[in-house]
Amino acid sequence: MRVQVINPNTTESMTALIEASARAVAGPGVVVEAVTSPMGPASIESHYDEALAVPGILAVLNDADAHVLACFGDPGLDAARELAAGPVVGIAEAAMHAAMLLGRGFSVVTTLSRTRGRAHDLAARYVPPGACRGVHACDIPVLELESDPAARKEVVALARHALDHDDSDVIVLGCAGMAGFAAEASAELDVPVIDGVAAGVVLAQSLVTLGLRPSGRGEFASPPPKAYTGLLREFTPS
Amino acid sequence: MRVQVINPNTTESMTALIEASARAVAGPGVVVEAVTSPMGPASIESHYDEALAVPGILAVLNDADAHVLACFGDPGLDAARELAAGPVVGIAEAAMHAAMLLGRGFSVVTTLSRTRGRAHDLAARYVPPGACRGVHACDIPVLELESDPAARKEVVALARHALDHDDSDVIVLGCAGMAGFAAEASAELDVPVIDGVAAGVVLAQSLVTLGLRPSGRGEFASPPPKAYTGLLREFTPS
Amino acid sequence: MRVQVINPNTTESMTALIEASARAVAGPGVVVEAVTSPMGPASIESHYDEALAVPGILAVLNDADAHVLACFGDPGLDAARELAAGPVVGIAEAAMHAAMLLGRGFSVVTTLSRTRGRAHDLAARYVPPGACRGVHACDIPVLELESDPAARKEVVALARHALDHDDSDVIVLGCAGMAGFAAEASAELDVPVIDGVAAGVVLAQSLVTLGLRPSGRGEFASPPPKAYTGLLREFTPS
Amino acid sequence: MRVQVINPNTTESMTALIEASARAVAGPGVVVEAVTSPMGPASIESHYDEALAVPGILAVLNDADAHVLACFGDPGLDAARELAAGPVVGIAEAAMHAAMLLGRGFSVVTTLSRTRGRAHDLAARYVPPGACRGVHACDIPVLELESDPAARKEVVALARHALDHDDSDVIVLGCAGMAGFAAEASAELDVPVIDGVAAGVVLAQSLVTLGLRPSGRGEFASPPPKAYTGLLREFTPS
Amino acid sequence: MRVQVINPNTTESMTALIEASARAVAGPGVVVEAVTSPMGPASIESHYDEALAVPGILAVLNDADAHVLACFGDPGLDAARELAAGPVVGIAEAAMHAAMLLGRGFSVVTTLSRTRGRAHDLAARYVPPGACRGVHACDIPVLELESDPAARKEVVALARHALDHDDSDVIVLGCAGMAGFAAEASAELDVPVIDGVAAGVVLAQSLVTLGLRPSGRGEFASPPPKAYTGLLREFTPS
Amino acid sequence: MRVQVINPNTTESMTALIEASARAVAGPGVVVEAVTSPMGPASIESHYDEALAVPGILAVLNDADAHVLACFGDPGLDAARELAAGPVVGIAEAAMHAAMLLGRGFSVVTTLSRTRGRAHDLAARYVPPGACRGVHACDIPVLELESDPAARKEVVALARHALDHDDSDVIVLGCAGMAGFAAEASAELDVPVIDGVAAGVVLAQSLVTLGLRPSGRGEFASPPPKAYTGLLREFTPS
Repeated sequence: MRVQVINPNTTESMTALIEASARAVAGPGVVVEAVTSPMGPASIESHYDEALAVPGILAVLNDADAHVLACFGDPGLDAARELAAGPVVGIAEAAMHAAMLLGRGFSVVTTLSRTRGRAHDLAARYVPPGACRGVHACDIPVLELESDPAARKEVVALARHALDHDDSDVIVLGCAGMAGFAAEASAELDVPVIDGVAAGVVLAQSLVTLGLRPSGRGEFASPPPKAYTGLLREFTPS
Repeated sequence: MRVQVINPNTTESMTALIEASARAVAGPGVVVEAVTSPMGPASIESHYDEALAVPGILAVLNDADAHVLACFGDPGLDAARELAAGPVVGIAEAAMHAAMLLGRGFSVVTTLSRTRGRAHDLAARYVPPGACRGVHACDIPVLELESDPAARKEVVALARHALDHDDSDVIVLGCAGMAGFAAEASAELDVPVIDGVAAGVVLAQSLVTLGLRPSGRGEFASPPPKAYTGLLREFTPS
Repeated sequence: MRVQVINPNTTESMTALIEASARAVAGPGVVVEAVTSPMGPASIESHYDEALAVPGILAVLNDADAHVLACFGDPGLDAARELAAGPVVGIAEAAMHAAMLLGRGFSVVTTLSRTRGRAHDLAARYVPPGACRGVHACDIPVLELESDPAARKEVVALARHALDHDDSDVIVLGCAGMAGFAAEASAELDVPVIDGVAAGVVLAQSLVTLGLRPSGRGEFASPPPKAYTGLLREFTPS
Repeated sequence: MRVQVINPNTTESMTALIEASARAVAGPGVVVEAVTSPMGPASIESHYDEALAVPGILAVLNDADAHVLACFGDPGLDAARELAAGPVVGIAEAAMHAAMLLGRGFSVVTTLSRTRGRAHDLAARYVPPGACRGVHACDIPVLELESDPAARKEVVALARHALDHDDSDVIVLGCAGMAGFAAEASAELDVPVIDGVAAGVVLAQSLVTLGLRPSGRGEFASPPPKAYTGLLREFTPS
Repeated sequence: MRVQVINPNTTESMTALIEASARAVAGPGVVVEAVTSPMGPASIESHYDEALAVPGILAVLNDADAHVLACFGDPGLDAARELAAGPVVGIAEAAMHAAMLLGRGFSVVTTLSRTRGRAHDLAARYVPPGACRGVHACDIPVLELESDPAARKEVVALARHALDHDDSDVIVLGCAGMAGFAAEASAELDVPVIDGVAAGVVLAQSLVTLGLRPSGRGEFASPPPKAYTGLLREFTPS
Repeated sequence: MRVQVINPNTTESMTALIEASARAVAGPGVVVEAVTSPMGPASIESHYDEALAVPGILAVLNDADAHVLACFGDPGLDAARELAAGPVVGIAEAAMHAAMLLGRGFSVVTTLSRTRGRAHDLAARYVPPGACRGVHACDIPVLELESDPAARKEVVALARHALDHDDSDVIVLGCAGMAGFAAEASAELDVPVIDGVAAGVVLAQSLVTLGLRPSGRGEFASPPPKAYTGLLREFTPS
């Protein structure tokens, strides 16, 4: 089984991090194919970045058995589902579903404050009202998570605050760049701390094992063919 | 006052239709600037089309006093709000808000069945649960609305069915390509029939008159500058 | 175009304030007809006051092209819609719709604590769950807003607190008596601050421009004629 | 214990019907005080009627131990709670609460189609989403329910349809004028059929027995005193 | 009329307390039959306890006219409704319904923190979103409520905190063991304080007076007969 | 890794069916331990059956790495989470989560009509409003699913009807006894058809792979020790 893990931004070092997190949980016989977006923003920290990350995702989508979109905004998820032959899982989606199986209410710990609205939108789409109890931002930019030696500590401190403030019992890490923090944070906080990349890979795998792919009935059927022009003409659906 | 009306697809004849609908309601002293997207799909009928219509919208956004996104999926609305200096209004948003002021519950009449999910998503974002009572598709492709002489009749018949089936009292036209149908349909059905393009223009104008622009607090502040690469490098935010 | 702006309480000085706010945004060719309720309470600060303000509103409703009910409780809105030939807009309704177009979540700043429940009820009717993030009271009585020189400052301070406490990005002023505070508060707080009177006037105008009036299908049709007796016999519908 | 049962319309014969329904369930030692509104509409079949029924209710509210508002629109409930010393119960409120204790989902069977919106509004206020499964109108005017010999049969037939259509298991009668139909309908349909007048009386009684009255904290405290003028000056709160 | 009040735990002293609370509000001619569960946990403070309290409830359910389940988790309510000939009321259900008739929003004050999730689940089932404004735990074990002389004071202090924190206006006592605290707490806090046992008894009585019993249509019909084996074979439904 | 799959009813042939479905998807190195409840009902078709199936589940819960509760009512899930050392997944929960990853809205196809309420309750707990579009019953008793040669055909026909009626794009099989129908139904209907047993096993496995177990913070901590008496004394928690 081949699982493609797409880093929707163009930063190779972040792809490496994501790949490591994915490989750590991939089952025997599962080939992880990590790929970096060939176009668009170096990190995704605004609606603008997110919108312009989607073409890169659609450009690299291949014929793997399943796909994981490794950015917590789940950019382009619906479009990718129309295009792909196999299941497509977003990491916010995967993490929130996993959180629901482990506790009564979760808090999201994310990077910039301005991205909290998107996290709330996704929670409204994926989980029942009240399951996502809060979204908290450490205000460390995505690309500094790795380089800033204090980042891990700050994220754990914020998660601890979130558990108390929100009266929650599970932590969801709100950025692919935090993938490496889950185990340590879980040990320190003594609650489940969920990395969406790992969760996305095991869920994608699970759907392939079940023999299931996105419904082709109606909305997620292949996009109808039509003319595309200008800078984006190479995206013409056939 | 300048109001930019953006046709997110690349079909010029549709821009002309949208422009006519906009000019018909623009106030004295309001300059309507209609513009066609320079890239991407000829019509928007899938999540894939919609995702690839967003870069074109962001590319043409200018320094007008307000902006209207003239596709019923409201593509790229959040990203445009981050980028624009003035208010940005989507036509689904405008039509649904107007509908709420005129009746208890509205039905949406749209083009392809596969776009109904998007309409429901937007309703969940804009209006209280229960306000949008149904979304009905005539399954006429967007670009045939104009050319198909039977289209108008079919849309009106579908609206009549929707009013009865959904127990609604207002009709929202779910495609910019239906802009020309509103007056006649309203007369025939004896309920408000709302064209989002016209609604969008008067709402955008209203916000400018009120001296209001999108909140710059948090989420809709200008996108942070960063590197953009590949095909989309011209979108680098500064 | 004639827009009637009804002050549902009997205090003339408040009508003058409302009229000024309305005229400031009325378009060219729009005649603002401000009117004071001829009966009932001098200000509206309880469910009791609100109930007894409704007959006065219905008594003065005229044949203007549109009507604005200038009390934040939107008293008698449904009844007025049945009676009027043109659109009727409440100022809470108008302000909340405008807020939705400008940010992700708004806070309401109002007068007496006891009116907060009504504001929450209206939010539940007009906007999706979560859009109204909080309702805060300064506990200055309605009729002291104008005379109390400290009122403006207190309202702005409360709005600042609300933005932080509620994590909101737009302020809605929850009383027609605060109409004069919007511009200054917006400048100080650097977020949109919405006066419902002004918002109501531009929205009412917009609906007239669109050629739309309340749906006569079902619930908002003219009230059926019948006998009325006693003190209220002059209200007999014909 | 004295329980005041207020008929919010001015039709004496309907008060007699309501009184009979109330007396049939009043406990030993409970004095039912039925009263007809001294002003306003002869029946309540529009938002306009309802608004103009409220002053009459407030005018007759006495010093009984509890009060029942015997119109299915629960007109003036909040205002009456501010004014009364004891509990105030609306019959829609009472019927819907009782329905929740007896089944999973109820249907409302009411008079005119145009009143269905109000029933839905009340359900949204009183019960969780999904509990009220439908509101069905027989389109027999309120004052013909008694005189029309076929009315009872039509209401039962409509209730039977509602149970099947809505997949509900309890019927709520949506008009005080249907008070006499409950027992027979229940026998015929073999599901609980709830008359709000009877339900209101036993619930009001129950609250008195429990020694409970509306919370005076905040919103339901006595209305603040102020000037009232014109036709309604006799309503001046003291 | 016979009303059976079931203590779902096995502690006789708690049954005595519940019985006293029930008798204090039972109407003339109402026989209160208090009974202690013959099997299972001595108190109910976990999902595990609650699950294992249900067989005992079902074992003692008799042919009374109505039944009250006197544990705030309302254990086994649906199953008891299938089995009983008359109405069955849970005390959380009764208390929450009563609270809705007396104020705008209530807070629950309960025993152990770990039971708050169950209280929220029940609120979601019984009342509209937003009616239950908070659930607060004093962390005094159920069986120490009676013996700990400081318990009453702590519960009142917690209720006072809850009213302010939640901006609520009614208190619901979240444990049958607090039945004796209601009157005193209500006097001290000057808001309605509701004991579910008393509320349950008067509601159960009310339903009998109305001649209503759980709907037998569908879900609450008698359980279908089938084989039961092992330890629980005595529960075989016939 | 050991995954315990618990059949909550006492019918051995159904355990065999469940075991086969579980083994078909278990990963390499995963040991499936299927077990039949030692007490209680032969099948679960009422709230009464469900309540009395819970003790059997709790009695057999062992020290496996994860547990699957193989009855679509997810009986005893919260209690099992308190007791187990590893993750516990219900099959309704698993199937609904999987459905959310594959389409926009699902329909449940189940056995007896009277169990539909439970399915709706679970959907309200697991997925956002609107995701579960309908619950349809074939009214074939659980234990006849296997023996009735027409059952498979009827279930597929009902699923086809559900897709059209509910405008859904995924089918969830609402009974462990339908485990064998998924593949064939999926092929015939050309949409994902989800068997909760298989979905439960892969999800449980996934959580173990992620190193996650139910949060011990608060509600799902081990039940507090206390006295248990009577028939259930062997369940005394230690």
